[in-house]
Amino acid sequence: MALSPKEIIDKMMAADEMSQWLGIEILDPIPGATSIRMTVRKDMVNGFNVAHGGITYSLADSALAFSSNSHGIRSMSIETSISHLKMVKVGDVLTVKTKELSLSRKVGVYEMDVLNQDNQLVAHFKGTVYRSGIEWE
Amino acid sequence: MALSPKEIIDKMMAADEMSQWLGIEILDPIPGATSIRMTVRKDMVNGFNVAHGGITYSLADSALAFSSNSHGIRSMSIETSISHLKMVKVGDVLTVKTKELSLSRKVGVYEMDVLNQDNQLVAHFKGTVYRSGIEWE
Amino acid sequence: MALSPKEIIDKMMAADEMSQWLGIEILDPIPGATSIRMTVRKDMVNGFNVAHGGITYSLADSALAFSSNSHGIRSMSIETSISHLKMVKVGDVLTVKTKELSLSRKVGVYEMDVLNQDNQLVAHFKGTVYRSGIEWE
Amino acid sequence: MALSPKEIIDKMMAADEMSQWLGIEILDPIPGATSIRMTVRKDMVNGFNVAHGGITYSLADSALAFSSNSHGIRSMSIETSISHLKMVKVGDVLTVKTKELSLSRKVGVYEMDVLNQDNQLVAHFKGTVYRSGIEWE
Repeated sequence: MALSPKEIIDKMMAADEMSQWLGIEILDPIPGATSIRMTVRKDMVNGFNVAHGGITYSLADSALAFSSNSHGIRSMSIETSISHLKMVKVGDVLTVKTKELSLSRKVGVYEMDVLNQDNQLVAHFKGTVYRSGIEWE
Repeated sequence: MALSPKEIIDKMMAADEMSQWLGIEILDPIPGATSIRMTVRKDMVNGFNVAHGGITYSLADSALAFSSNSHGIRSMSIETSISHLKMVKVGDVLTVKTKELSLSRKVGVYEMDVLNQDNQLVAHFKGTVYRSGIEWE
Repeated sequence: MALSPKEIIDKMMAADEMSQWLGIEILDPIPGATSIRMTVRKDMVNGFNVAHGGITYSLADSALAFSSNSHGIRSMSIETSISHLKMVKVGDVLTVKTKELSLSRKVGVYEMDVLNQDNQLVAHFKGTVYRSGIEWE
Repeated sequence: MALSPKEIIDKMMAADEMSQWLGIEILDPIPGATSIRMTVRKDMVNGFNVAHGGITYSLADSALAFSSNSHGIRSMSIETSISHLKMVKVGDVLTVKTKELSLSRKVGVYEMDVLNQDNQLVAHFKGTVYRSGIEWE
């Protein structure tokens, strides 16, 4: 039986130890537009005492996985890019807003805005996924 | 007094809690071509039980920071992209080989190959940094 | 004497033989958000009889040059990417809408939506420029 | 009957008016590693009197099309990026060297180095294609 978007995301999240370590919360389990949130901790900084670029990337990449898979088809990231636009500090609350730019039978393209608690754009992510054709069940 | 490449990387690494969490080891502290290594752990997987895309990204992004900063000038990532080419599993040992494509007064461009223990290319990363002009000391 | 946004774009356009070959018209000479338009001709197709990827790229890259330079500071593209989302045919009228994601003293980041005459998104472009500090005059 | 790599590239090139306008010559019709060349003309410059970014992009994008399609399967570009590393002038002879980073049943990933007549790297391109499964014939 086909799973609902929420069931797919819950199933992914339960197995996704990295997203758990990041402290990701699902705000909106909408296919193609899943919104998620996390808070930056002290153990996430780089050598400049700001959030490591891998933190905003990982957050956006999780949003990509949830947004693309919750259409019901197993999908995997093939190419992604991120622009780091503003420093992210310990304690910042980051929210990802997702936009589906294109969805065809085999390929999906997404962009993610990563915003802080003051609604400032701290990073901009673009991701392309391959849609395997295999249904989530 | 200007710091040596090794001193800069050691100083960055000592403050870089994310790279410590990843278990990154510095193999070669060469400016423009720093090589680093880590082993994938169970707490780094995503919902498909393979390494989260953020793991290979974070590893390559750390290599970018070390490679660009060890020239002696404080440099920050402005745009990066990564292609995920092959699944990465728990226990895989990942090594980053760095190549400096271009270095001008204000901009540096790098590519990183992420290889596994069988010398297979698992991810390919490209990063552009802005060079602030401020020396490491 | 500092030039106006329109004067800068007119000056660039007069020397820009490639943009003239493309048949680019300036719709809105707004700094950071210049909008431009062109029509796809028969001599712009690739081996699949659709517009060569270089056509939508060149159009968006011209929009990047106009949008970033019309702030008054000479700026040059350092890294760009484009997702080709929908086939573009001979006769299609393409319009670029520009959004400035970030503008700091030395770096600007932009995204461009390339739309066809039916307002469908045919390509999505992201561009990063280095701002030289040299004024247009 | 399946076509040879050279037959596929010749067939594509015969219909590819943009590549003809660019003056592209095929140096090596090797699947996954097609090498091509062109000379920059006066009508290819931008407003700074150097080659428009769309010229090196179009050249590399044609190399991507030839390299990926000459495996015998119709393939189309889905995501590409290019770093402009060095100014390109009128009269420069540009050669593209292609490397296939990955080839799976449905996706291919390539990087292209664009070199000038002095063997300097003027641009670096990365391209991802979707392989349709339809054979060239």
